[in-house]
Amino acid sequence: MISKHHASKASTLANRFPENPILTPSQVRPSREDMEVECILNPGVFSYAGKTWLLVRVAERPKQENDWISFPVLEDSEHLIVKRYRRDHPDLDLSDPRIIRVGSSFYLTTLSHLRLFCSSDGVHFNEPDDRPSIIFPHGVHETFGIEDCRVTTMGDQFLLTYTAVSENGVAVGCMRTTDWVHFERLGLIMPPHNKDCAIFGEPVNGLHHCLHRPSGIDLGGNFIWMAESPDLVHWGNHRCIARTRAGQWDEARVGAGAAPVKTSEGWLEIYHGADKHHRYCLGALLLDANQPYRVLARSRLPIMTPDMDYEQKGFFGNVVFTNGHIAEGDLLTMYYGASDTVICGATFSIREILDSLK
Amino acid sequence: MISKHHASKASTLANRFPENPILTPSQVRPSREDMEVECILNPGVFSYAGKTWLLVRVAERPKQENDWISFPVLEDSEHLIVKRYRRDHPDLDLSDPRIIRVGSSFYLTTLSHLRLFCSSDGVHFNEPDDRPSIIFPHGVHETFGIEDCRVTTMGDQFLLTYTAVSENGVAVGCMRTTDWVHFERLGLIMPPHNKDCAIFGEPVNGLHHCLHRPSGIDLGGNFIWMAESPDLVHWGNHRCIARTRAGQWDEARVGAGAAPVKTSEGWLEIYHGADKHHRYCLGALLLDANQPYRVLARSRLPIMTPDMDYEQKGFFGNVVFTNGHIAEGDLLTMYYGASDTVICGATFSIREILDSLK
Repeated sequence: MISKHHASKASTLANRFPENPILTPSQVRPSREDMEVECILNPGVFSYAGKTWLLVRVAERPKQENDWISFPVLEDSEHLIVKRYRRDHPDLDLSDPRIIRVGSSFYLTTLSHLRLFCSSDGVHFNEPDDRPSIIFPHGVHETFGIEDCRVTTMGDQFLLTYTAVSENGVAVGCMRTTDWVHFERLGLIMPPHNKDCAIFGEPVNGLHHCLHRPSGIDLGGNFIWMAESPDLVHWGNHRCIARTRAGQWDEARVGAGAAPVKTSEGWLEIYHGADKHHRYCLGALLLDANQPYRVLARSRLPIMTPDMDYEQKGFFGNVVFTNGHIAEGDLLTMYYGASDTVICGATFSIREILDSLK
Repeated sequence: MISKHHASKASTLANRFPENPILTPSQVRPSREDMEVECILNPGVFSYAGKTWLLVRVAERPKQENDWISFPVLEDSEHLIVKRYRRDHPDLDLSDPRIIRVGSSFYLTTLSHLRLFCSSDGVHFNEPDDRPSIIFPHGVHETFGIEDCRVTTMGDQFLLTYTAVSENGVAVGCMRTTDWVHFERLGLIMPPHNKDCAIFGEPVNGLHHCLHRPSGIDLGGNFIWMAESPDLVHWGNHRCIARTRAGQWDEARVGAGAAPVKTSEGWLEIYHGADKHHRYCLGALLLDANQPYRVLARSRLPIMTPDMDYEQKGFFGNVVFTNGHIAEGDLLTMYYGASDTVICGATFSIREILDSLK
């Protein structure tokens, strides 16, 4: 059992921005006039051209009318269309706020795309005015949207790993850019059911590495795995490196955050864990520098818990979820989604996180 | 709806061996004296040294004693041990015949290994006397066994793709051999939840291809996917190529059989489909010769259904399941598991299967 005293003490490792939340749905314009932004979530983070950038997941839905439920879907792999059903349609099941069931078909209530924001101070963010800011889903494996993108900086290239959602399943797509104008799509790098994929910023022993989160059925669970690749496109040697822990804060699901930070003690990974009440907290893993599939240490208690009002109330409450940060010396500036609704920031001391693992 | 007339007509494409079943559990010695062979299943098939070979999945369990339930598990990644619980133990749940639940832990009632059998006539099979016949599970991702191995012949090498089962989940492992004595383990090539993986016998457009069967959660389903690889170890560009079909014989799950057969019309793949009553039938897919992710044709009706007594009654009844065959000219000699209990054989005319797809 986690005592309140310990949980509270542990969560002081996070120094939240006083400006939180730093981005809310009302600050984000919809991609079309007939859509509205329902929530903004879980940004990838990178430095580029002297600024801090967020690649935010923007979940939109059509403006709703009385007596009708309408929802978005990608048609012909690229055109966003709106489907409409009368709310009293006998085949309609709206019992899950995220999912619309029509007979044997599933749809999502919202469709997510990725949106660029940049900032000179790391706190006040706006869409850039010198380039397109929206990355839309594309193709038959993204018809329900793209979500929760990690951005890994590797030399002069940026690798985007995101959740690709369609009626084919939930998988991991990858694209690559050097200028944030042209994007090379590398296809799905992980088949369903998979998400939370982050590529290491440099090869280890001559091979690229990534963390990912497949899900088991009957056997296994929502565990963190590692894979290797010679070329960033093809991945193998999958290994389970961190499982859920019964009775603890990460008992139900765990998943990687951003690319790990290289430290003198090994690779430091901030991950999320959820308990059976769907409360999402953050913890840390320390991975061996040369054999990163070896977990040297793991947070006994969370390093951050959903304590603030904006972390406890929203589209999906009691959630702090990160997939992006910037490390400079000892300072880790982390951006995170709170309650699946708004974007926030917090800083950590890398030294303090490492010390907490001892 | 499939009429009885049509189903019966379609299933005549299979010419069953009159000797069926050709291998039964009583003909297979257990790997240890304290174990018994519960069932034998789903062989990989290949030609080697002038003979026909089966790589059979052998599911064993410890000999059971009154008042006790005992089950096998791999300890320290390589030693088979037997766990025992009193049947009235309060944490024990035996409601699923395949699974033993102890509190929050899962185990399997049986542990599977792979066993070689060979034959000069393709009908009468025995374990070889000139080499080890057993391939045991090994390592932390195989602690509950290895199952349903496809064997792909590629030049002078054989590629074994099998289901690796452990508390980490159900994934696909691969090993390689040229002499069936020494095996090179290539690690897990597909993360959970995945099975039914078959590698093509030759590259297409310079890349290796495989079929595999990830499973979705909430979205997606039990669909056939394709992946590509430069080296057989690392796989990417995952694409869904065949989904289940609502209301049809393959409405609940589909999965590839063996490596596809190269024909003048494209790659011919025999796959299994199950309906919501868990009745497993076989059908065919015709894949484009140069773009094998394009499905040119698909069986409207099964090419084989579980009609015989030995296909309808057993450990898991109403199942015909294949993952191995040998093609010579127009003759496809297929081996299959019946009712998850015994091994059988049947021949098909490749021409007749292709014609049935028109």
